Amino acid sequence: MYKVDVNSDLGESYGRYTLGMDERIIPLISSANVACGFHAADPVVMMKTIKSVKEAGTQIGAHPGFPDLMGFGRRNMTLSFEEAKAYTLYQISALSGMCQAQGLKLQHVKPHGALYNMAAKDYELSRAICEAVAEFDKDIIMLGLSGSETIRAAKDCGLKVAQEVFADRGYEEDGSLVNRNKDGAFIKDENEAIARVVRMVKEGKVTAITGKDIAIQADSICVHGDGEKALLFVERIREGLENEGVEICSLKEVCK
Amino acid sequence: MYKVDVNSDLGESYGRYTLGMDERIIPLISSANVACGFHAADPVVMMKTIKSVKEAGTQIGAHPGFPDLMGFGRRNMTLSFEEAKAYTLYQISALSGMCQAQGLKLQHVKPHGALYNMAAKDYELSRAICEAVAEFDKDIIMLGLSGSETIRAAKDCGLKVAQEVFADRGYEEDGSLVNRNKDGAFIKDENEAIARVVRMVKEGKVTAITGKDIAIQADSICVHGDGEKALLFVERIREGLENEGVEICSLKEVCK
Amino acid sequence: MYKVDVNSDLGESYGRYTLGMDERIIPLISSANVACGFHAADPVVMMKTIKSVKEAGTQIGAHPGFPDLMGFGRRNMTLSFEEAKAYTLYQISALSGMCQAQGLKLQHVKPHGALYNMAAKDYELSRAICEAVAEFDKDIIMLGLSGSETIRAAKDCGLKVAQEVFADRGYEEDGSLVNRNKDGAFIKDENEAIARVVRMVKEGKVTAITGKDIAIQADSICVHGDGEKALLFVERIREGLENEGVEICSLKEVCK
Amino acid sequence: MYKVDVNSDLGESYGRYTLGMDERIIPLISSANVACGFHAADPVVMMKTIKSVKEAGTQIGAHPGFPDLMGFGRRNMTLSFEEAKAYTLYQISALSGMCQAQGLKLQHVKPHGALYNMAAKDYELSRAICEAVAEFDKDIIMLGLSGSETIRAAKDCGLKVAQEVFADRGYEEDGSLVNRNKDGAFIKDENEAIARVVRMVKEGKVTAITGKDIAIQADSICVHGDGEKALLFVERIREGLENEGVEICSLKEVCK
Repeated sequence: MYKVDVNSDLGESYGRYTLGMDERIIPLISSANVACGFHAADPVVMMKTIKSVKEAGTQIGAHPGFPDLMGFGRRNMTLSFEEAKAYTLYQISALSGMCQAQGLKLQHVKPHGALYNMAAKDYELSRAICEAVAEFDKDIIMLGLSGSETIRAAKDCGLKVAQEVFADRGYEEDGSLVNRNKDGAFIKDENEAIARVVRMVKEGKVTAITGKDIAIQADSICVHGDGEKALLFVERIREGLENEGVEICSLKEVCK
Repeated sequence: MYKVDVNSDLGESYGRYTLGMDERIIPLISSANVACGFHAADPVVMMKTIKSVKEAGTQIGAHPGFPDLMGFGRRNMTLSFEEAKAYTLYQISALSGMCQAQGLKLQHVKPHGALYNMAAKDYELSRAICEAVAEFDKDIIMLGLSGSETIRAAKDCGLKVAQEVFADRGYEEDGSLVNRNKDGAFIKDENEAIARVVRMVKEGKVTAITGKDIAIQADSICVHGDGEKALLFVERIREGLENEGVEICSLKEVCK
Repeated sequence: MYKVDVNSDLGESYGRYTLGMDERIIPLISSANVACGFHAADPVVMMKTIKSVKEAGTQIGAHPGFPDLMGFGRRNMTLSFEEAKAYTLYQISALSGMCQAQGLKLQHVKPHGALYNMAAKDYELSRAICEAVAEFDKDIIMLGLSGSETIRAAKDCGLKVAQEVFADRGYEEDGSLVNRNKDGAFIKDENEAIARVVRMVKEGKVTAITGKDIAIQADSICVHGDGEKALLFVERIREGLENEGVEICSLKEVCK
Repeated sequence: MYKVDVNSDLGESYGRYTLGMDERIIPLISSANVACGFHAADPVVMMKTIKSVKEAGTQIGAHPGFPDLMGFGRRNMTLSFEEAKAYTLYQISALSGMCQAQGLKLQHVKPHGALYNMAAKDYELSRAICEAVAEFDKDIIMLGLSGSETIRAAKDCGLKVAQEVFADRGYEEDGSLVNRNKDGAFIKDENEAIARVVRMVKEGKVTAITGKDIAIQADSICVHGDGEKALLFVERIREGLENEGVEICSLKEVCK
């Protein structure tokens, strides 16, 4: 039996500002990555998001980012090891404690935006993040780009890992994502995207931009909930997976 | 045997900015109130503070404040119940998780600055703070102004309470602190201040600004560590208490 | 010939967050109040807003607020005189310089949210704001609640003033707005609202919540652009005013 | 007659946090670089700094930085061209307007910390900064690392430029500063440092770390005011320059 998790970034509103369609995407995913107040979210938003996720029975994870609300955590920042570790620990602690007050436990941690992308290529940065997670709670699953330095660092820290793939993105031969500005960065045909995801899950393979098949592990698929079109695509991916006998379940189940 | 706790606000540096003489005051107190990143402190500062407090064997508590770094949490802000509760929960969660990573447990929570002063007079605001603490962990001790609304709300929320007194401040007949701009707001004579503290602890009484003796409960004495003079005064208070047979111990011991 | 200005708050987006329908409301108003980065807006948003306002030929003003992005400047804060003055000066300077780079000049200043409301009743706070404006540029028009302390302070500082009225709000006999939680706070009937506005402009009178007519000066009408319904209402107000022979023109024209 | 400017970074306190010894360094320099609220300073601090600088008759400049108070603007951030330009314009506008209220005019702009260092090597980033300055006011002098991309971009934008040198730093053969982690990064001998500065000013030459003499233009010398030792060193540099017939005067005089 094939299993895969479907995750999405949530709880990214802030004060008077609303972002995303959280109520719509939550029922469609098995794991929610919740912003922790650095790149998005404030404590009131976090509380509401936790309650929505809890109500839906979806698993919850922390989505720590750079301290850059103005840039939504999407701009590279050069942090020291100590800073990256402390910022991660602060954010996951804040979310975890708010979950605890609702009787929930953090399932996973997935870095956000530029932190995710930088860490995927930078072992030391990944190590700082993963040490924070491991010192906080060894049972938390680290969710990172499939085959990345984040996965390697997480394993070195003794954490359980979950490898993330993207349905709508092209891959280089080394398993990294094709740069967004390059041809082939995005898989525009929905049927092709779904077929690729199914193959990644069932065969552990994907065709790189060069035409060569490469090995890839797909524990979780990243989806978006920021528009009608995105939501429809999630429904189609779910359908495609289920039609192919792939069960969608939380990271906890996948990583068992 | 008389017992009292001695507490101080700590960990108020931020990034490149240093405040206080934490290394000097920590060995002189039994409970440390550690800033949580809203009115002061950043995650790196918090991590260092936790390690210093741990090393000294001092008990640790969270010191949540208004989200106002520019005003150091000393300016009144009008928060909704929901905001006050979520902001408190976020801050104590963040600090608590960072403590957990160091094998420490939060002993208490004491609101900071304007939040402390507003809550002392405002049951609803105190209630929001105390509900956050109680939903997070029922075992945490709430430290608030002796006889204040904060104490009342904490009891209503089923929390253990610790009542705080000030050595260097005058009291009104109703037990509130004399306004800082009024004559008699400060006890300038050190010997008198120490004598007053000893009497508060041993007799549960203090002479109000009107000359009348009032009842007051003294579980903890607030001291400052922001200068040589302040540090010397703490040493003298400690000496004064010990000479009078009062044992200085953590809130956990006092509130047993 | 009767003249009145129509103003609206604009440029309140921030980073990845979008608020309001600026492109739609700008052509319908004669004066734009542009957020300056404290309660809303970042420099990129400000630059875009200035360009949109410039293109439409609408007059521009600064909309300074409390340093409280999380609360959108809608929460009361207790600032010292020095703080209120410096925060105002900083914000109007920032916007003014950005306008200067586009060849525009600030027409007016209108405080935002809680700062507007607090200042309306607090002469000292208004004075701090108005001193900042006057020291920056004596030619800037101060836009405040009709009959408020802000108007009084602005006159005392030698500034030109523009008195603002609300089409959709009830008034107390003393000219203050009926509290939002009280019956009669809002004028729900659109025709009534428009008739009231026309009368305020032409007769200088409005019927207070008590039924008594009071004097009121209406130099500018505040409108909202945060939804289809709001935009339609602005069109109806414009129509209503023009049908009654009232010319809509900028504050500069009204205050000449 | 040889002329050189002596500049220092100032006004870097924030709220309750004090940094630097501004009152002590101001009389020793000819140009002050004043923080604008992004990496340091708040409006109250800025107002006080402007007044101190005005009183001393020192020339004032803006010191814009990354929006990173937590990192004091010392951490690399990846900004888009539009962001870098808007952030610079916002900051220099804010300071300039506050100066205007005190009857002062901005003499120059010098980027701070990581923005300075990144811009020195990155023409596009420098271009964004310089376009902001040029669109704001063509008369402002751009102060940047001698021989850097910032100088090149400033000239391309039609700005007057001032080239900055460091007394206590080693230079590579290409005129860039020796990396702080490399041997030879710092000139530890004070007499040597002073001799080097004098030679840079009078001969336009400095000995690079390789032993080879390179050409360098020295319009301004950067000094620090963050300690007794630093202040003493500034006094010695002044003395050394004056003894060698070099007049210390503001950038306005040097760049005439």
